[in-house]
Amino acid sequence: MTPTLTPPAGTDPLAAAQAAARPFAALAPSRRADILRAVATTLDADADRLTALAGEETHLPPARLRGELVRTTFQLRLFADLLDDGGYLEVAVDTADSDWPTGPRPQLRRMMVPVGPVLVFAASNFPFAFSVAGGDTAAALAAGCPVLLKAHPGHPRLSRHTARLVVAALTDAGAPSGVFALLEGDDTGRAALVDHRVRAAAFTGSTRVGRLLFDLAAGRPDPIPFYGELGSINPVFVTPAAARARGPRIWSGFVESFTLGAGQFCTKPGLLLAPAGAAEQALVEALEGHPGAAMLNDRLQDGYDRDLAALTAHPAATILVNTRTPETPDVPASDVPASDVPAPVGPALVTATVSALVADPDALAAEVFGPASVLVTYTDPAELLDAARVLEGQLTATIHGEADDPQDAALVRGLLQELSERAGRVLWNGWPTGVSVTHAMTHGGPYPATTSLFTSVGTSSIGRFLRPVTYQNLADDLLPEALRDANPWRLPRRLDGRLFQPDTTDTPDTPDVPDVPDTASVAPVSPQ
Amino acid sequence: MTPTLTPPAGTDPLAAAQAAARPFAALAPSRRADILRAVATTLDADADRLTALAGEETHLPPARLRGELVRTTFQLRLFADLLDDGGYLEVAVDTADSDWPTGPRPQLRRMMVPVGPVLVFAASNFPFAFSVAGGDTAAALAAGCPVLLKAHPGHPRLSRHTARLVVAALTDAGAPSGVFALLEGDDTGRAALVDHRVRAAAFTGSTRVGRLLFDLAAGRPDPIPFYGELGSINPVFVTPAAARARGPRIWSGFVESFTLGAGQFCTKPGLLLAPAGAAEQALVEALEGHPGAAMLNDRLQDGYDRDLAALTAHPAATILVNTRTPETPDVPASDVPASDVPAPVGPALVTATVSALVADPDALAAEVFGPASVLVTYTDPAELLDAARVLEGQLTATIHGEADDPQDAALVRGLLQELSERAGRVLWNGWPTGVSVTHAMTHGGPYPATTSLFTSVGTSSIGRFLRPVTYQNLADDLLPEALRDANPWRLPRRLDGRLFQPDTTDTPDTPDVPDVPDTASVAPVSPQ
Repeated sequence: MTPTLTPPAGTDPLAAAQAAARPFAALAPSRRADILRAVATTLDADADRLTALAGEETHLPPARLRGELVRTTFQLRLFADLLDDGGYLEVAVDTADSDWPTGPRPQLRRMMVPVGPVLVFAASNFPFAFSVAGGDTAAALAAGCPVLLKAHPGHPRLSRHTARLVVAALTDAGAPSGVFALLEGDDTGRAALVDHRVRAAAFTGSTRVGRLLFDLAAGRPDPIPFYGELGSINPVFVTPAAARARGPRIWSGFVESFTLGAGQFCTKPGLLLAPAGAAEQALVEALEGHPGAAMLNDRLQDGYDRDLAALTAHPAATILVNTRTPETPDVPASDVPASDVPAPVGPALVTATVSALVADPDALAAEVFGPASVLVTYTDPAELLDAARVLEGQLTATIHGEADDPQDAALVRGLLQELSERAGRVLWNGWPTGVSVTHAMTHGGPYPATTSLFTSVGTSSIGRFLRPVTYQNLADDLLPEALRDANPWRLPRRLDGRLFQPDTTDTPDTPDVPDVPDTASVAPVSPQ
Repeated sequence: MTPTLTPPAGTDPLAAAQAAARPFAALAPSRRADILRAVATTLDADADRLTALAGEETHLPPARLRGELVRTTFQLRLFADLLDDGGYLEVAVDTADSDWPTGPRPQLRRMMVPVGPVLVFAASNFPFAFSVAGGDTAAALAAGCPVLLKAHPGHPRLSRHTARLVVAALTDAGAPSGVFALLEGDDTGRAALVDHRVRAAAFTGSTRVGRLLFDLAAGRPDPIPFYGELGSINPVFVTPAAARARGPRIWSGFVESFTLGAGQFCTKPGLLLAPAGAAEQALVEALEGHPGAAMLNDRLQDGYDRDLAALTAHPAATILVNTRTPETPDVPASDVPASDVPAPVGPALVTATVSALVADPDALAAEVFGPASVLVTYTDPAELLDAARVLEGQLTATIHGEADDPQDAALVRGLLQELSERAGRVLWNGWPTGVSVTHAMTHGGPYPATTSLFTSVGTSSIGRFLRPVTYQNLADDLLPEALRDANPWRLPRRLDGRLFQPDTTDTPDTPDVPDVPDTASVAPVSPQ
């Protein structure tokens, strides 16, 4: 299979990406910021067409899709702001020091540089935010890396249309040709993953596929980083005090969170730990009238049927609700084109005890991608800790507790300890679905949540596509601009280990001090 | 084979490390700083015994060993300073924001936490700085990770003695039992590498062994990061202008650098690119009287003989000098115990053309660990760029040029571009041997130089053993101290994306402002 290429037509996209890598990396961060904003503007301007296409191919409701597109273009602009700040370059300067304890120290100047072309595997469940112009693309472009985007077959027309918009915006904004290309087909994706010109890869999807790709990346003659965001059950722990104080709100919040988007979120809570007898009736009542929702595609629906069947057949599991195929879908026929929207899939809930979970966590804490979850009941609150200890790496873990309850105090601290060792994000009295795109977000965790130590959402995800380079004793005019004495890009820098910020009251084109040897041209952080 | 355990005796070191992980991680960074300094003090106090043992087992000269021990304890103290600064925790706080463009933003607080027990494979060529108490150990302990240290069989008595000192110092300083243990034997090391309790590994050594271990780490059911520092040829490019201006100094510097420590450095220059006819005679003269030096052990010497034989047999290579076994070793017999010091190994130099290198870089740019190097000659300066383009990832790459020479200007810029894409450290008019332990150092590079994007020397190497955790909407008193409003550890933090430093003029126990909601308790970086 040959790659399907969004412009430049007729070119090998891998060769084009490699050719684009150097000029794209050489752009000042502020130039790349402009380019990212141009892409965002172009996508926003075509929001109607984009969301209509996405609706046709994913069966997701219009409001959700509009919100996701807002998130996607916001993300591009947030990375643009990060580039304007420049701290992501992690500039460090060690001045020459003949008295350095380990022997004369040369002048050393370090900065982060892009790794080169990045292969991004799009996900099906977020056709904007984790697809063609999603978070991985935004982070890689921000870092200065060309992007080869392996389209998800779940929304091919949307992928092609988005890619055309991205390429047009990049071209108009002056980005080098070849900085972005769409690849289609699993064979094409795998071939690109083992191509020496690809220097890193990012993936969001199932543990099964993610692990296959991880193994390919690690097995190359020259292994590359593979940033996979794979499986997570996202456990939610409800203390006795929380169940007493506000059980009904917690149970309804849980139903809303695990059925949201037909349960097709990486952060869907697939495990609710609650006192025996506290939640069962309320959950059954909330779920039995649930309308269900169409899943994204047949492949996911087949996988859901398979995994749900395995879960409900488990000898230690009792089915509380299984509305897999409701008799009368509660969706007005006028709202959707009747032709190609599959029947809604209703939610399912099984229950088991903590002892059963501890005895077989591989089966009872297995991710079921779709609107199913497991209620795990306890009789002794200490069992919550037993349950936490058998869980593998997670994107999120949540505690519902009462801060002022004396019984909760020790229990919650114990849970926080266990969960922070297993998850990248620990929530208090909330729901894990909904991942805010911010600076302090972590969307990642110990394997299998992710295959690396990095977050894949938020500004610090840019670090996945950067590596450090140090220049030793290089003359100022030969250095990259980011490292020069005059600090023309006005970057924060670490000077001999201490952090300095550029003087922000000067105009940007005036160095803080005249060009004197080495690093006097940064103003120290005020010790007040 | 069962692991050989430095105290606590009789315990499984992996179980002990796992048990120590939590209390060790919970220590304030300033406490771990004290612990690192205590280890340094203990090692310094036993310098005579340590260097004597090292001399017996490695045949390295006393001055070199004393210098290396200074470097090793300095490194421990530099990491202690890093802990006192606290910036390595990368604290970020996003305040709750109901107007966040992608929907109401919860309060998010992120910090870096230790990954858990780390397995460190010691190297043979730096019996202090890359061995039991070396850089990887210092970085992992600083991060808050217990260390399982796989001893190198090249210096077993030194390893055990150093480990005893480290464990005694850790115990006296109040570190949890099990924070450090010595493992011996290749089987033991491999078993630990695939043990689920080990959460990351670091290695310095050959590409062959490093790749075997990398594959084991990547092939685990739960893959872990494997930070390998493997092979590098460390090319040195001499421009025509530099050769004209100061050829003799460059040729003697090259001989000194590639024969230093019998060529047993990761950063040994194994390739010198010089104008045809410029260097040959001077290099031969400098090398023919060279006394040689004993190699570290028989295994390395056998490998050197094998790799040198392959190099000298290459049809495109011409032997300039091969003093592999000098007739009369220039080592006074009285200086060393005659019994177990092997005969010195003399240096070797072969030459080839750039065309030959370009035609077969795998053979002519292969690392030969020992005092051998390759002189690659060019007739047209543009060939320097051709040579650079066939090189794989490097720890270092060096240019000797003349900044004021008009012909060099374009050539040097072209070389800087090619080399910064291939190496972690780019040197100007210097020699790569000697890696300063500083903040701005990069000791790493694209594969096979390293198997990750991280440096393994310098303070930023701590990042290898940390991962981010974000807390969402957690009450202040339940948060880790590093993230609390009052900022009791006085850490720099990124607040809603902007970097803030704590007010350093207050006494450490006085918060900058009273305890008000969220993050008002940090003083902004002064905009002056």
